Amino acid sequence: MRTFSTIIASSTPIGRYLISRLSLRRSHAISVKPQASTPPMAAADASNEESLRRTLAEKQSAVDAQGNAVRALKAAKASKSEIDAAIESLNRLKLEKSSVERELQSVVSGSGGGASVNREAFRQTVFNTLERRLFFIPSFKIYRGVAGLYDYGPPGCAVKSNVLAFWRQHFVLEEDMLEVDCPCVTPEAVLKASGHVEKFTDLMVKDEKMGTCYRADHLLKDFCNEKLEKDLSLYAEKAAELRHLLAVLDDLSAEELGAKIKEYGITAPDTKNPLSDPYPFNLMFQTSIGPSGLIPGYMRPETAQGIFVNFKDLYYYNGNKLPFAAAQIGQAFRNEISPRQGLLRVREFTLAEIEHFVDPQDKSHPKFSEVANLEFLMFPREEQMSGKSAKRIPLGEAVSKGIVNNETLGYFIGRVYLFLTCLGIDKERLRFRQHLANEMAHYAADCWDAEIECSYGWIECVGIADRSAYDLHAHTEKSGVALVAQEKFSEPREVEKLVIAPVKKELGLAFKGSQKNVVEALEAMNEKEAMEMKAALESKGENQQYEEVAKVISTLLKVAGISHKIDITGTSIGKRYARTDELGVPFAITVDSTSSVTIRERDSKDQIRVSVDEAASVIKAVTDGQTKWEDVWSSYPHHSSESADA
Amino acid sequence: MRTFSTIIASSTPIGRYLISRLSLRRSHAISVKPQASTPPMAAADASNEESLRRTLAEKQSAVDAQGNAVRALKAAKASKSEIDAAIESLNRLKLEKSSVERELQSVVSGSGGGASVNREAFRQTVFNTLERRLFFIPSFKIYRGVAGLYDYGPPGCAVKSNVLAFWRQHFVLEEDMLEVDCPCVTPEAVLKASGHVEKFTDLMVKDEKMGTCYRADHLLKDFCNEKLEKDLSLYAEKAAELRHLLAVLDDLSAEELGAKIKEYGITAPDTKNPLSDPYPFNLMFQTSIGPSGLIPGYMRPETAQGIFVNFKDLYYYNGNKLPFAAAQIGQAFRNEISPRQGLLRVREFTLAEIEHFVDPQDKSHPKFSEVANLEFLMFPREEQMSGKSAKRIPLGEAVSKGIVNNETLGYFIGRVYLFLTCLGIDKERLRFRQHLANEMAHYAADCWDAEIECSYGWIECVGIADRSAYDLHAHTEKSGVALVAQEKFSEPREVEKLVIAPVKKELGLAFKGSQKNVVEALEAMNEKEAMEMKAALESKGENQQYEEVAKVISTLLKVAGISHKIDITGTSIGKRYARTDELGVPFAITVDSTSSVTIRERDSKDQIRVSVDEAASVIKAVTDGQTKWEDVWSSYPHHSSESADA
Repeated sequence: MRTFSTIIASSTPIGRYLISRLSLRRSHAISVKPQASTPPMAAADASNEESLRRTLAEKQSAVDAQGNAVRALKAAKASKSEIDAAIESLNRLKLEKSSVERELQSVVSGSGGGASVNREAFRQTVFNTLERRLFFIPSFKIYRGVAGLYDYGPPGCAVKSNVLAFWRQHFVLEEDMLEVDCPCVTPEAVLKASGHVEKFTDLMVKDEKMGTCYRADHLLKDFCNEKLEKDLSLYAEKAAELRHLLAVLDDLSAEELGAKIKEYGITAPDTKNPLSDPYPFNLMFQTSIGPSGLIPGYMRPETAQGIFVNFKDLYYYNGNKLPFAAAQIGQAFRNEISPRQGLLRVREFTLAEIEHFVDPQDKSHPKFSEVANLEFLMFPREEQMSGKSAKRIPLGEAVSKGIVNNETLGYFIGRVYLFLTCLGIDKERLRFRQHLANEMAHYAADCWDAEIECSYGWIECVGIADRSAYDLHAHTEKSGVALVAQEKFSEPREVEKLVIAPVKKELGLAFKGSQKNVVEALEAMNEKEAMEMKAALESKGENQQYEEVAKVISTLLKVAGISHKIDITGTSIGKRYARTDELGVPFAITVDSTSSVTIRERDSKDQIRVSVDEAASVIKAVTDGQTKWEDVWSSYPHHSSESADA
Repeated sequence: MRTFSTIIASSTPIGRYLISRLSLRRSHAISVKPQASTPPMAAADASNEESLRRTLAEKQSAVDAQGNAVRALKAAKASKSEIDAAIESLNRLKLEKSSVERELQSVVSGSGGGASVNREAFRQTVFNTLERRLFFIPSFKIYRGVAGLYDYGPPGCAVKSNVLAFWRQHFVLEEDMLEVDCPCVTPEAVLKASGHVEKFTDLMVKDEKMGTCYRADHLLKDFCNEKLEKDLSLYAEKAAELRHLLAVLDDLSAEELGAKIKEYGITAPDTKNPLSDPYPFNLMFQTSIGPSGLIPGYMRPETAQGIFVNFKDLYYYNGNKLPFAAAQIGQAFRNEISPRQGLLRVREFTLAEIEHFVDPQDKSHPKFSEVANLEFLMFPREEQMSGKSAKRIPLGEAVSKGIVNNETLGYFIGRVYLFLTCLGIDKERLRFRQHLANEMAHYAADCWDAEIECSYGWIECVGIADRSAYDLHAHTEKSGVALVAQEKFSEPREVEKLVIAPVKKELGLAFKGSQKNVVEALEAMNEKEAMEMKAALESKGENQQYEEVAKVISTLLKVAGISHKIDITGTSIGKRYARTDELGVPFAITVDSTSSVTIRERDSKDQIRVSVDEAASVIKAVTDGQTKWEDVWSSYPHHSSESADA
């Protein structure tokens, strides 16, 4: 007997989802804005710098005044002892000024004056080694290369291939995600709907004489950083203004950026020529699809849109059930205005993205308990705003206290933490930083970046965001195809109903001639009786024990790296076989005992009995080609169940 | 003692190479022209069809003549018996004509009239199932899709991922190939040098009123096929002309194609509007790199060019030695004029390519014996020209008889055969077809396509070609960087010289105080004595036994899927460790006994002793994460050799 428990949903569209993006080379995602390139300075440091700048300005005034006093004494031909005393006082003031200057220098250069120099030298050494050993090669080197394009050489390819294989194992296989693989060439309609055609831009300025292009914000950022670091005579007020500019750089309009560039007299770095006003430059590589020249297209700037436009098919593939996740690994293209930071900001790179679709009314996650006890560096919004540092928080606490918005978001933060540390990322150099309110898109509920500290500072490597149903809504509107998960009723209602559905074929096998009586008895049961029988079966029945066995085998298969699914749907064994046969799944394990199980091979329909412990290793040996099915077939007892397989 | 045998090359540039291309979705490569879409009809069939067409024409004339005779008898009011006899004769002639017609119909439709219909229905069934189960999805379906772009859904991704992993295992790992990974975005200079900018075109015609674009050769091909298949009244001479056209379709110039289209009155298929003259359309997706709009670029149409431009670095990486192979897996893009044949001819697809660089004076292959006994369907040029069918030839015989140009080409044909049959391709539907002289580029020495018979006929799936040094020459000329393998001397000469180079450190360890004497004795040896000692050591020495052990362990590692290299260079153990340490290789196995070996872990520099049999499984367990190095370290005897590791 199987009972069906039917939950009938009301007709609200369901479509919130989470994004987990792992950029293998470097990343900055349209939906997840990159961290402000200069992270907001901790408040304590900022106030210290401000007071030092004030003190320095005071010392400078004192030195100037004392200098004037010395000159006045000399002009007035004062006594030698009087002049000497004044000079001594001047020198003391100069020493004091130097001391403040050194202290200020150390504050503005980060953790001590020599650190940035050492970091730069260290980076150069690593970079040179990686290039010499062909981990990477500047692309098209014999043609003098192209900025922002790099090849991987043999060891780089090996690393990339291992990372991707582990990613697939850790996320796609482990979580039964639906993988898709969409083209890079994308028609304009898709990227208009997603907002990329209109908004995926950076502000650009041109050298008015040479035509060379620069990113407007980079020029302003470089100017501010250089000024703050090298011009110690800068007044505290001015320094505060520049620091504020750095913090809000991402929010400046073209007009505001242009005004600042004019105000500070910033010119083209290479020629010192005047610069044009800033204007938006779209970062997508444009092309044309087909021979007519009439279908504009772009090289995709992210892989996520391929998932969104397939939502309907994937939802259907998942049996019209939420939640489910879809994943994609592939190339992304961004025509950066002026690529820099070596391999961190390039024009073509491999992205690995996950979109997890959940019911917006229920963002709990069944496996959250598996990551709840993880404890690592988190940098919540509040700590950033109040100038504190990142701190260790158990993930369970972060979710229960509402620091992380919900369990599903928390679960993926935990999984990304495990992924990165398994890859060998130093736990002390890994933190999860929450987006500030002004960094998030208006539709996002919460965003966290996994940041890794490297020689360029803390760099965003993975973005994990609850983006609501924004993209699905946009594509629904533009395509006219409803990308929603719902069931429709004339009016919303919620019903739970118990239906007794005797499986006559199985009853026939078990009870032979008495089948008819058993069916009648089952159908005559009232709801209460049926529920009691169901509970009794579930608490100590076999359907329970077998599920445990299935889980044990599933774990063994996962360890062996073999993709699989547990099918506990109520259809007959024969139908389940037919379904997977069509899909090309070569082996099926059927659990009908706690000691031994049946393995069935697709093409021959042969079935053998093996012990539970052996099931995974037998399948592993055949799929790896270490042994052949024929040999397995001749080594184990056979199982026949023609009727079930029919 | 180690002896160095130095082979000094003359100063001729070396750079022939072979290409093995596996297109995962579908393929047709610029260098390896696709097979003529209609394979040349076997001569026997052609002569049969010709005689049938003649007979049919004769029967038609006879029917016409007899019809006239009947009409004449009626007009002349001849006797009923006379008229009846003439009508009976007419009917007999009509029956004879029908019979010839049926026979001809069956010949022109291939293997019987119903076959093509069944094949079409079968294909549609498979196609529908694959689409329903999301093996593939027409890309951007909710926006009504784009011709020639397809997504892979979850089961398609699983298949692709398995095929690529096996390809990497079978070719890259098994043959120690150098893998590279280059960007898709490619500057114009590279593709100008390779010839793609000028020559990677198809001839296109436009509907003069609607502007719709068609491939000129496709229209002519469809016209010829339709005429041959449906117009049974076609005269034998005309039929022969159309068949000849189909055979030479790929060689027709724009003018010749245009003339034929005019002559046959071919119009636009959709509208019947007149067509423009044919003109070349470049199949590359064009774009612009960087913000200036001044650097034209293309999406690469093949991955091979990324390997060629890196030749110098890869040759250096390989210790400046030939032969070596480089491999690349990645996306390729072709802006097809009118994609058709489902997934076979699309606009974006994954290519897996190998370029194997060999000395043009020596194309032998050390592992050829491993494939020499394979026997499978081959379709040499001669068999195609004389109208015979493909035949089974042992690969060793094909090479020794000169049917396949050389051992290296033969070796890769054998490896591709093993790869495809391991994937499950039916041996009866797989053949290797040699290119006809007019199919090959002028610089190519020999080309073979692996063709698989499917519902579209025999389709090229892998191209294996000896292309000489064409691309390397082209890039050398355009970039000014010499892509050659050579050593320079004032005049060409060939010298073999024996140098005795005592390894003093090892001798010191072995002989302690007596080291000096041993070194003196070695250095005093003449060449003959040294060679004898070398031969003795090699025939029964330990340097020999240890190599066998290394090969055993190497095989076990290959089975475990672990990438590795055997290092038998003459440098000290310490230097070998340092070299691989820098590369990030986590484990080194040192063979210094035939029973047990040393395993060294990179980060800790710990060394343990394990039995030869265990070496691979210990490393497999640690790399798979089943056990930790710390546990291994505490379970096995330790080994210390500080001096060697220094």
